[in-house]
Amino acid sequence: MARLVLKFGGTSVGDIERIKNVAKKVKQEVDAGHEVAVVVSAMSGVTNQLVDYCRQIAKVHDQAEYDAVVASGEQVTSGLLAIALQEIGIPARSWQGWQIPLIADETHGKSRIERIDTTSLSDNMSKGVVGVVAGFQGVTEKGRIATLGRGGSDTSAVALAAALNADRCDIYTDVDGVYTTDPRIVKTARKLHRITYEEMLEMASLGAKVLQTRSVEMAMKHHVRVQVLSTFEQAPGSDLPGTLVVDEDEIVEQELVSGIAYSRDEAKITLLGVEDRPGVAAAIFGPLTDAAINVDMIVQNVSEDGRTTDMTFTVGKADLDRAVQVLEKAQADLNYRRLAADANVVKVSVIGVGMRSHAGVAQRMFKALADRGINIQVISTSEIKVSVLIAEEYTELALRSLHTAYGLDKA
Amino acid sequence: MARLVLKFGGTSVGDIERIKNVAKKVKQEVDAGHEVAVVVSAMSGVTNQLVDYCRQIAKVHDQAEYDAVVASGEQVTSGLLAIALQEIGIPARSWQGWQIPLIADETHGKSRIERIDTTSLSDNMSKGVVGVVAGFQGVTEKGRIATLGRGGSDTSAVALAAALNADRCDIYTDVDGVYTTDPRIVKTARKLHRITYEEMLEMASLGAKVLQTRSVEMAMKHHVRVQVLSTFEQAPGSDLPGTLVVDEDEIVEQELVSGIAYSRDEAKITLLGVEDRPGVAAAIFGPLTDAAINVDMIVQNVSEDGRTTDMTFTVGKADLDRAVQVLEKAQADLNYRRLAADANVVKVSVIGVGMRSHAGVAQRMFKALADRGINIQVISTSEIKVSVLIAEEYTELALRSLHTAYGLDKA
Repeated sequence: MARLVLKFGGTSVGDIERIKNVAKKVKQEVDAGHEVAVVVSAMSGVTNQLVDYCRQIAKVHDQAEYDAVVASGEQVTSGLLAIALQEIGIPARSWQGWQIPLIADETHGKSRIERIDTTSLSDNMSKGVVGVVAGFQGVTEKGRIATLGRGGSDTSAVALAAALNADRCDIYTDVDGVYTTDPRIVKTARKLHRITYEEMLEMASLGAKVLQTRSVEMAMKHHVRVQVLSTFEQAPGSDLPGTLVVDEDEIVEQELVSGIAYSRDEAKITLLGVEDRPGVAAAIFGPLTDAAINVDMIVQNVSEDGRTTDMTFTVGKADLDRAVQVLEKAQADLNYRRLAADANVVKVSVIGVGMRSHAGVAQRMFKALADRGINIQVISTSEIKVSVLIAEEYTELALRSLHTAYGLDKA
Repeated sequence: MARLVLKFGGTSVGDIERIKNVAKKVKQEVDAGHEVAVVVSAMSGVTNQLVDYCRQIAKVHDQAEYDAVVASGEQVTSGLLAIALQEIGIPARSWQGWQIPLIADETHGKSRIERIDTTSLSDNMSKGVVGVVAGFQGVTEKGRIATLGRGGSDTSAVALAAALNADRCDIYTDVDGVYTTDPRIVKTARKLHRITYEEMLEMASLGAKVLQTRSVEMAMKHHVRVQVLSTFEQAPGSDLPGTLVVDEDEIVEQELVSGIAYSRDEAKITLLGVEDRPGVAAAIFGPLTDAAINVDMIVQNVSEDGRTTDMTFTVGKADLDRAVQVLEKAQADLNYRRLAADANVVKVSVIGVGMRSHAGVAQRMFKALADRGINIQVISTSEIKVSVLIAEEYTELALRSLHTAYGLDKA
């Protein structure tokens, strides 16, 4: 017997038939003798509708009231799934954030979980009652509803799994796992049976939108074994149907590179002829930080004349116009010669904890791209990833070349 | 300065524009210096949708889960109205049943309010913060959401007004008050400026569906002054825009009859040739009670032969088929000669606390109907009303005749 937390996203509970289907999946786990808690999102489309209502009334609105409005979506699904479970003979009851209680902090709209008192929920589960938990929400110490930000139901599920000491947290979604790269682009992409938390974090934040980043961080911190799998289909011939996200030591034979991720959400800014003096980086990035614009990759060229240099960095595509405005306003202070902006870029990354102990991973990447005539504009590296910025039109070609170069193509 | 509870029904908050309109009405009361709590229903159509979801999953379902699902509708409206109020400069916050808390009993789906702890809500109101309360719901001692039955937001509002010691409870709806009779049928119907609780109860339960019966009972018990008025239009040239429901002693000049109500929801059953012996009534109505069928008007004819009699009574139209089945099954036991059923009837009632101290009220009714050639099939009376059952096709004629006969036509 194991204790499991299952999480179903918005498309998985998108209509009444799908909710009934989810009930059947939960029943399978109960019939197998497991104690089960289920975390549900709002039916797909509902949250957007509720957010839109708030915006129609006031563009800027009280986040505590926003939370009261949008948290209702998960409340509905939790009650409906409890009814669907009871209808097929499985004892179940719904739990709202305030009923558990799942205590969250006062930063309404993007609240963080502070603690979960699982006493009652756990008691019920021990008695064979499936706990159907409304995801995405908690309650503040002041007794107000607080939501955890978009995609927060993943975080609810992992936090609950940690608090319940669950053996596994299964995240059911509309993809059947984590792939070596985007299978829509690279036909030879393979599903990964296991991936480390660190790798998953890089995959998630680099654009493979399978799991919310915060939920992976939380899983890593509390050593929660997370499985990503599909609500709609089961991969044939696999003992584990999805991808298991685990500690590094659970992966016996580690590949050099686990996956190739990409993000089209980047834009490049170059400041030409910036004064090469101490504090110039702070002078550039200070105003951007003040404007809440995140800067990602940063490259400073070696100064040729000893007096000026070029500074290149990336910002989110959505922030590009605002970033340019901020920098143009600061021109007098920064004293750069020219500003060049380019939204036509993509960030491609190779990711793998294996590269910690192996040299030559980056070199293989540069060579594979060079062989295809793809120019690298910016490079950044971390312990377990190498990222390059290239022109957007090379995205597919780069992914396919790298996927082959690292031996990831399926047999 | 007064303390007011305002209640807005589903059509009053039916879309975002209407919610903004409600905010403006609330602002008027706040600007006039009043302390205000607002009780809201779900946006029109939402509750039906949620009820339908539950039924689609299971025809018979756990009422506690049903409550969790359907209570979400009011939660959404409360948050949205709080945002709308803040947007026009009125401090406001939403309150769910469990946040107040409004404690309700365990009979989920049609729970009754046990008590309301208004400490926090009242503190907020004293500080000028409008309390926007989700109607229709409370929380049980066990911490589960409980709803008060359809139309329960009226009851929420009156109970809250009683608990808050409010000076008045204004029920905003899609009609502008209580009329002497149905103005769609009788063009000369007048709006009543005041009506007693007792009369309102008779009007409500007899088919003038303005206020939920339970809310009127509660108002009467706690002496809450209730005003019924329209969200959409204000009656011109009237100091009080709606109808005030009050204690009898607040009405100085009491009319003999306040209004004429009617109900098409009745059906008539006659058992011919029933044995005239002690206990026969119990033998007839016992099986109906067991089948949860309510019997309303009952007439037993005087026995002519000393051995058999005829028994006539009414049941709800929706229950007629089932009632006939029950009685046919009991035929051997009851030993009646023949059963006659008639769904083609209407109950018409004249209502007025004034008739307590005046004779001849019933006689005037019988004469007015006789003058029009309308045959009375069954009569029943109470302290403040006389009801007759007539053929349904005479409904309009009867209402108009009686309205004139009691001098209710507007000048």
